[in-house]
Amino acid sequence: MYISENFSNDEEGNLTISGVNTLDIAKKFKTPLYVMDVNLIRKNCRKFKGALEKYCETNSFVCYASKAFSCKKIYEIMKEEKMCVDVVSLGELFTAISAGFPKEKIYFHGNNKTEEELEFAVKNEIGKIVVDNLSELKKLNEIAEKNNVVMKILLRIKPGVDAHVHEYVTTGKIDSKFGFTIEENEALGAVKLAKELKNVKLEGLHCHIGSQILEIKPFLLAAEVMMKFIKKIKDECEIEINELNLGGGFGVKYLKTDSFLDVDECLKNVISLIKQKSNEFNLKMPSIAIEPGRAIVAQAGITLYTIGSIKQILKEKTYISVDGGMTDNPRYILYKSLYEATIANKAAEKKVKKYSIAGKCCESGDLIGENVLLQEAEEKDILAVFATGAYNYSMFSNYNRNLCPAVVFVEDGKCSIAVKRQTLEDLIRNDV
Amino acid sequence: MYISENFSNDEEGNLTISGVNTLDIAKKFKTPLYVMDVNLIRKNCRKFKGALEKYCETNSFVCYASKAFSCKKIYEIMKEEKMCVDVVSLGELFTAISAGFPKEKIYFHGNNKTEEELEFAVKNEIGKIVVDNLSELKKLNEIAEKNNVVMKILLRIKPGVDAHVHEYVTTGKIDSKFGFTIEENEALGAVKLAKELKNVKLEGLHCHIGSQILEIKPFLLAAEVMMKFIKKIKDECEIEINELNLGGGFGVKYLKTDSFLDVDECLKNVISLIKQKSNEFNLKMPSIAIEPGRAIVAQAGITLYTIGSIKQILKEKTYISVDGGMTDNPRYILYKSLYEATIANKAAEKKVKKYSIAGKCCESGDLIGENVLLQEAEEKDILAVFATGAYNYSMFSNYNRNLCPAVVFVEDGKCSIAVKRQTLEDLIRNDV
Repeated sequence: MYISENFSNDEEGNLTISGVNTLDIAKKFKTPLYVMDVNLIRKNCRKFKGALEKYCETNSFVCYASKAFSCKKIYEIMKEEKMCVDVVSLGELFTAISAGFPKEKIYFHGNNKTEEELEFAVKNEIGKIVVDNLSELKKLNEIAEKNNVVMKILLRIKPGVDAHVHEYVTTGKIDSKFGFTIEENEALGAVKLAKELKNVKLEGLHCHIGSQILEIKPFLLAAEVMMKFIKKIKDECEIEINELNLGGGFGVKYLKTDSFLDVDECLKNVISLIKQKSNEFNLKMPSIAIEPGRAIVAQAGITLYTIGSIKQILKEKTYISVDGGMTDNPRYILYKSLYEATIANKAAEKKVKKYSIAGKCCESGDLIGENVLLQEAEEKDILAVFATGAYNYSMFSNYNRNLCPAVVFVEDGKCSIAVKRQTLEDLIRNDV
Repeated sequence: MYISENFSNDEEGNLTISGVNTLDIAKKFKTPLYVMDVNLIRKNCRKFKGALEKYCETNSFVCYASKAFSCKKIYEIMKEEKMCVDVVSLGELFTAISAGFPKEKIYFHGNNKTEEELEFAVKNEIGKIVVDNLSELKKLNEIAEKNNVVMKILLRIKPGVDAHVHEYVTTGKIDSKFGFTIEENEALGAVKLAKELKNVKLEGLHCHIGSQILEIKPFLLAAEVMMKFIKKIKDECEIEINELNLGGGFGVKYLKTDSFLDVDECLKNVISLIKQKSNEFNLKMPSIAIEPGRAIVAQAGITLYTIGSIKQILKEKTYISVDGGMTDNPRYILYKSLYEATIANKAAEKKVKKYSIAGKCCESGDLIGENVLLQEAEEKDILAVFATGAYNYSMFSNYNRNLCPAVVFVEDGKCSIAVKRQTLEDLIRNDV
């Protein structure tokens, strides 16, 4: 009935999330409101960990890509689920550490880490730094030397696979700000330099081929390219690569009609290929790491809004305006991303009409969606938008000086605040 | 040489803003940094006020549309410049009032004002509320009655002019979430209801035909439609409309090669038309209000970044990464907006190469611009991006948990902090 099993209707026809009436949640915590189902988040973590552990005989690491949704509480959950996390900034790293997340299980990404960020990471002796470029490699080594630390690193490699055109770009001429290209020996040069430097230890290689990938083939292509490169490294540098991190991009359903990636099947095939290539190339099987973000949290989240003004444009179109918008969910204006929604207090009623869901910003592009099929809408109805767990709260902006909604976690039938609603005082806290 | 006169080079070839060396500013306040030239902001205010007062014999109001850039200090400047301001949320209203801006000079906009917002506005007896829809009109009247106040209102009208297709859409079937349409007597119905309600006083009409308008004609078309509607109101409802607010949309230069709207010429022509129509229709000449936002602050702002990693993609393309990105300037990823930039410490050198300016977010779309002509770039250079005064700070997001830059105001050769840089502690302030 809904895009994931954790949503249902109660006897009175109201939408429930993980068994809890969403109207009660909206009443207690007010709208707009992000609501996350922690049970589903844990289930998703276990799905990835389970598959990796089932198929992979070497060590395996599932890193939650926390840029999808980051706050202290989510790192606590990841700690409990024995996950690794990846962070992409000092802000995420600081939040993870503040939440007591084990530092040694943190991967640090980024195409332009600042010296301040690298220093913080080194001083805190976090797990692994995914080095993006030569300048960073040298800088990191210096900072590590100054702090008398040997930092474990991965090198970010462009495997030359574009997951979105389903095409194996053999030249590797990928136009991206991220990582080292295998072509022209750029990546190999980085490997050689890493070998020379005393305060970094090359643990492995990393690649990431895109977002919302719905087919297994691009992952296989990337794995094959990376294994060939690992063989080349062994042949030319006499270095055995211990870890292969294949990044994220595991596609999820946003709409009921969407296809999605079968994680178990994907990981089974990818690991089988890596095993096969390890044998073929006479390499030891590397540890495998993956970095799901969206696939852990997207479906676990809904946003609850109160419907305000309803406006029919002559006979053609009806806008319903909600008490949030592009500030709490910028994915429609950014990428034209589609969402399903339901009127939470009429969830059991038939959907009869298509609406444009507008936000409250003074900007005509401020829409959550167009032509969204809903029950007959009335003012003060509670609108639930599904699959907003990823890249909604994390992309929030104070545009129009709208306040950031609270985030409520639901687990085992209980609700608790994970992030408090922003206040008016917060808005001017840094104003002089 | 630059997009506006307030930028220049000093004797050592460094970029200056309002006479102050941008390198000194970057050194003192760190990067990324928003820098605003208050002298230019004041000059822009005076340009609009001057033109309106010159051509308009009735009262005139220039409202700064503060969604373009809002913080306490800007409202202080607007107070000093005897401007009105328009706000679009409780957050902006609260900020204006916190800054001591005169409440009676505030206009409140929005397609979906919440009850909380209306209550706050009524209790603070702000100047005028621009009512967007019938439901709001009724709600506002109730709230005003409860508080024993008569609120001055404007009605937001869709004039059926689309400024972007340069076409006079006579049907008025404009697909917009904002305002009342003149067609089918929707707007007239609102006028009649406003007349009946005891706790609102209809002061005038408002329209807004778009953003970044570069021609005078659409303003003239809108003014004409509005004057015809004012006549209709007089004829059918025996109400004389006191104020005509023509909104904003005054186009500015982002690039040196851009055209822009001649404000003086535009206002001269528009007011002349309104006078002529007042005579022709036997109406008293209304007060005129306008709402420039971007045209007040866009060119006054620059963003200073430190260049980090520089990455040549084989022979084809060179990325320079800066210590900010789509978080502090989302206009490229949102609208493909173009900006000019210069290397502040090499401002007098020849621009020799085109770069893609990338941010530090883990998102491939995180760019400030592509094919931007610059001097030869090196790590640690200071990059200045021009015309970022509007819709940059105000659209900031903490995506990737990057921190919001400070805002520095430059005036008469002196620099001061307007908004302090966000801290790591700020990030987790509301986290449980």
